[in-house]
Amino acid sequence: MFKLNNNYLKLPGSYLFSTIGKKVNAYSVANPDKKIIRLGIGDVTQPLAPAIIQALHGAVDEMGRAETFRGYAPDLGYEFLRNAIADNDYKARGCDISADEIFVSDGAKCDSGNIQEIFSLDNRIAVCDPVYPVYVDSNVMAGRTGTYDANTETWSDVIYMPCTAANNFAPELPKETPDLIYLCFPNNPTGATVTKAQLQEWVDYANKVGAVIIYDAAYEAYISETDVPHSIYECEGARACAIELRSFSKNAGFTGVRLGFTVVPKELKCGDVALHGLWARRHGTKYNGAPYIVQRAGEAVYSEEGKTQLKKQVAYYMNNASYIYNGLKEAGFTVSGGVNAPYIWLQTPKGMTSWEFFDYLLENVNVVGTPGSGFGPSGEGYFRLTAFGSYENTVEAVDRIKGVRL
Amino acid sequence: MFKLNNNYLKLPGSYLFSTIGKKVNAYSVANPDKKIIRLGIGDVTQPLAPAIIQALHGAVDEMGRAETFRGYAPDLGYEFLRNAIADNDYKARGCDISADEIFVSDGAKCDSGNIQEIFSLDNRIAVCDPVYPVYVDSNVMAGRTGTYDANTETWSDVIYMPCTAANNFAPELPKETPDLIYLCFPNNPTGATVTKAQLQEWVDYANKVGAVIIYDAAYEAYISETDVPHSIYECEGARACAIELRSFSKNAGFTGVRLGFTVVPKELKCGDVALHGLWARRHGTKYNGAPYIVQRAGEAVYSEEGKTQLKKQVAYYMNNASYIYNGLKEAGFTVSGGVNAPYIWLQTPKGMTSWEFFDYLLENVNVVGTPGSGFGPSGEGYFRLTAFGSYENTVEAVDRIKGVRL
Repeated sequence: MFKLNNNYLKLPGSYLFSTIGKKVNAYSVANPDKKIIRLGIGDVTQPLAPAIIQALHGAVDEMGRAETFRGYAPDLGYEFLRNAIADNDYKARGCDISADEIFVSDGAKCDSGNIQEIFSLDNRIAVCDPVYPVYVDSNVMAGRTGTYDANTETWSDVIYMPCTAANNFAPELPKETPDLIYLCFPNNPTGATVTKAQLQEWVDYANKVGAVIIYDAAYEAYISETDVPHSIYECEGARACAIELRSFSKNAGFTGVRLGFTVVPKELKCGDVALHGLWARRHGTKYNGAPYIVQRAGEAVYSEEGKTQLKKQVAYYMNNASYIYNGLKEAGFTVSGGVNAPYIWLQTPKGMTSWEFFDYLLENVNVVGTPGSGFGPSGEGYFRLTAFGSYENTVEAVDRIKGVRL
Repeated sequence: MFKLNNNYLKLPGSYLFSTIGKKVNAYSVANPDKKIIRLGIGDVTQPLAPAIIQALHGAVDEMGRAETFRGYAPDLGYEFLRNAIADNDYKARGCDISADEIFVSDGAKCDSGNIQEIFSLDNRIAVCDPVYPVYVDSNVMAGRTGTYDANTETWSDVIYMPCTAANNFAPELPKETPDLIYLCFPNNPTGATVTKAQLQEWVDYANKVGAVIIYDAAYEAYISETDVPHSIYECEGARACAIELRSFSKNAGFTGVRLGFTVVPKELKCGDVALHGLWARRHGTKYNGAPYIVQRAGEAVYSEEGKTQLKKQVAYYMNNASYIYNGLKEAGFTVSGGVNAPYIWLQTPKGMTSWEFFDYLLENVNVVGTPGSGFGPSGEGYFRLTAFGSYENTVEAVDRIKGVRL
């Protein structure tokens, strides 16, 4: 008789954003006349930029003609895209990353869920708290996290690094030694960042203890301050200890287009074995490449027109971010984030729990955010709003929240 | 110090098609004047059908306008596509499968590699021999296959079901009891099929011993004989024991577009736990949906124009298949397949090994096929040719092979 992967059964509840979706849907069905404004899930709302639309149409036409039709993509991505990434995201910033260290994929969510597979099950992971749920959940599914304590909402074998107002939402080096360290800057959900000097400390630490940093830089396009690194490879020694995950979802609005990539430098080794080869093997065996038309769209992100258009798109969302930040601050909320990231992290008022505040906003002003506690125990008492809505909706949502009498 | 997933290190060599690619590339570089014809990897060559191109352009335009832009897709796929699949692939064939049992993905390769994740590591798998390499390799990576014997090219904990000329390339029920049974009909690589009555025996067997059948039906569009089932759900009791994998790669030429789906019926349970929920959790946590534009392309596959155009495309490839089949038979080869599948399976001449024949054809007539031994030990002495080339190339390849003096 077959048996299930019991690790799945250990997972408490459903995936955070599925739970929110169901709650909002139930409210919406019960109150069909209410106009709900969604500033919860980090989904973009602006249409794809003209340069990207043009590239997509061009690639679609190629797929319709025998002489330009493309079948299976190269396992690790088309050269044209890997070269554009290496040149623009790395070489232009002085990072020594070559095209063949870049693995094109259908998005950073998949990569951040799958990357743990190439590591031993007895590796110990460290995560920020609060944190993007995929890092922990994918390790739970693999059986790497021990037992769940429903009271503390923590796993026995996970090292949590609290990110709170006390440390300016930047984690401190953990007391216990981890094998895999998940870092995400600019941070989802808090919007916090670290300076290059701070990140260098992490790289030095990882190299010292023999840990791998899985560095999620999905939000790097939103960095506005000069001392905040865009890539971990700006730090010395990162090639020997860090994997970087990148997304086209937030810098180019590809949430529904699906494209991302992972960088695995060839120097990153366990003994004599390069992780590059293992990840290549995973890609070759369990993945079949991102669609040709989507990879052409990715290439257009790096064209001159694409860059100009997307800079405006990012500025549009960051204008929303500062509207939320300033509006809520004026209204007396304690807020952070929003300067180098499209997320605003606020303290819930009057000692409400995160979910209480979620329900309160949904029911009273029909605004959807994300409860901080959904990202981990240290997120309790916090709430995330995203700047990815339209400007009009963002203004209306902030005005509605300002109007509540708590 | 972090450690690797050592199961990866147990994998012998690289992924089969990567190895072939490297060999062909090396030959091509050394012999730039030779015109190589590739009938190796199962990649299509005909351009996307006009109905699909039209749907892609339409969806791209929607992504360029704010009022029709789409961000994250629903976790499990858009309703419009899941409904089209349920209606056309299942209800129209009398199979009781509903839209919410269909999980849209970026292809059957990913699904066939990932599906093992929801099962316990101590489940025992059974595979046909020869077999599509992903089934075994993904289980090796997970640590489910025991130790590798380089002499027999088999894994200690895998149950192999030889498919040879003696059993008409259809597996017999295994002597040892498996927990997970991988079946693929029409078969890759042999092109063999089973009748509905034969498949019913497998379903009855799985229900009797408490095994799950993972049924790969990626080639169902090529079925020409009436007693060959298109779906395992044509068999009674399959809802309680079978998962079905489907692809748009071969019926609609989506190898470079990436779309597939997996069916997990809600009746499929281990005790009280439905596998449907586990697979949904995996999708929600580690996957972020197929691109909107690609799902619209998938929908067009089921439109009247799409169906008519794709029927012609399949007929085009099947015409190639019969040309290869008949041509090689005339030339004295022992051939099978090619009637309900785009693959021709031939015995290597003069007792050559599969790789010897691969090298012989590559070097002497510049035709690339796939060595049967790459699919498993019982594939030794066999060779796979695909019908997915252009008609002109197919004719030339067959003529070249017919001309060799062995």
